[in-house]
Amino acid sequence: MSEKKELVVVLLSSGMDSAVCASIAARDYRVAFIHFQYGQKSCLKELECFKKLVDFFKPELYKVVELPFLKEFGGSSLTSSELEIPKEDRPGEIPSTYVPFRNGIFLSIAGAWAEVIGAKKVFIGANEVDYSGYPDCRGEFLEAMQKALNLGTRPETQIEIVAPLLRLKKAEIVKLGIKLGTPFELTWSCYREGNIACGNCASCKLRLNAFKEAGVTDPIPYEGF
Amino acid sequence: MSEKKELVVVLLSSGMDSAVCASIAARDYRVAFIHFQYGQKSCLKELECFKKLVDFFKPELYKVVELPFLKEFGGSSLTSSELEIPKEDRPGEIPSTYVPFRNGIFLSIAGAWAEVIGAKKVFIGANEVDYSGYPDCRGEFLEAMQKALNLGTRPETQIEIVAPLLRLKKAEIVKLGIKLGTPFELTWSCYREGNIACGNCASCKLRLNAFKEAGVTDPIPYEGF
Repeated sequence: MSEKKELVVVLLSSGMDSAVCASIAARDYRVAFIHFQYGQKSCLKELECFKKLVDFFKPELYKVVELPFLKEFGGSSLTSSELEIPKEDRPGEIPSTYVPFRNGIFLSIAGAWAEVIGAKKVFIGANEVDYSGYPDCRGEFLEAMQKALNLGTRPETQIEIVAPLLRLKKAEIVKLGIKLGTPFELTWSCYREGNIACGNCASCKLRLNAFKEAGVTDPIPYEGF
Repeated sequence: MSEKKELVVVLLSSGMDSAVCASIAARDYRVAFIHFQYGQKSCLKELECFKKLVDFFKPELYKVVELPFLKEFGGSSLTSSELEIPKEDRPGEIPSTYVPFRNGIFLSIAGAWAEVIGAKKVFIGANEVDYSGYPDCRGEFLEAMQKALNLGTRPETQIEIVAPLLRLKKAEIVKLGIKLGTPFELTWSCYREGNIACGNCASCKLRLNAFKEAGVTDPIPYEGF
């Protein structure tokens, strides 16, 4: 018999960070997963991995939310077929893969769902150490978003945005995932389309470095490796 | 030749408040309209009115965003076929027509679009005087949301959420609309489905009272009147 009483919402892209975040949440709580399809180039692969993660974690509830307008808005190489995904992030610059206010939109929607299903926590795998410099991954943004969420919902709704990976180095996230049994073989971090991770985009590089530093073999295959 | 240089985003549901808000914005700025379809019972009528308002105002850009998941989430009599829309709001209570964090989701999306098109203001017709008690219509929520929006977007993106009707009485909004030439005949406030406003839901009542207090005839027809 489970003794986990509290239900929490987890944002699960199927990337390595959100999968470790799901492991942390599932250790202590009943979980409800939410996944977003917004026309990102890797959306089909992410959805495939999300379904496998659902099979693995067996959340109490899960929801796939379609946000095709984010691709229509444009302004990001992650969604626009006209902009190429760069191989490197330049330090101090917000990369072209930034999607305008993505986590703000995701947290607003996840918060609305949390209010309806009575969840008091929303878990997000945001990380502000080894990250791509996205403004919507920083702690101060998450705090402001939590405040907005609580002012814009019913007075009895008090939702905490929980970001357990916020201040961890990427290699520490890998180690934590290994310890918790995160199924990294079911995750996907590559920004590009395709069935095998490119190993060359900024996201693949961050992930490969993290596994290397952690002294662990990344279980997913990469092109040309 | 127009001397309006600045482009602003306007949330336009096609209700009377958002239409007056559009008139205010269009007086001083080039406008980009955004409208949301989220499975609200009046969505088809609202879309029809939105298109007429687009013909009237001729915005530089406009966007209709579909958010069908809000109806799926449930939790509101405005979207759920199982919950009836009440005739009265009870003072001090949040009515069943409240849609979880609706304005938070709308402002997140409008803010993302504003960032992409380079708009520095997002206009919303929120009102906290003669309103239904929705928490996401209050000034303190709008301030918190503006802060989250600016922390979660590029450092050079500075967006102001403008709510010119926030502290006006509903009758004052009618008078202002008349002065600015708002085409009230193209607007729709009724919560219910149908081609003629019911005159009986809380939203129709607020509107009818406002026109009465303002001493102006509401140009739209009502059932049984």
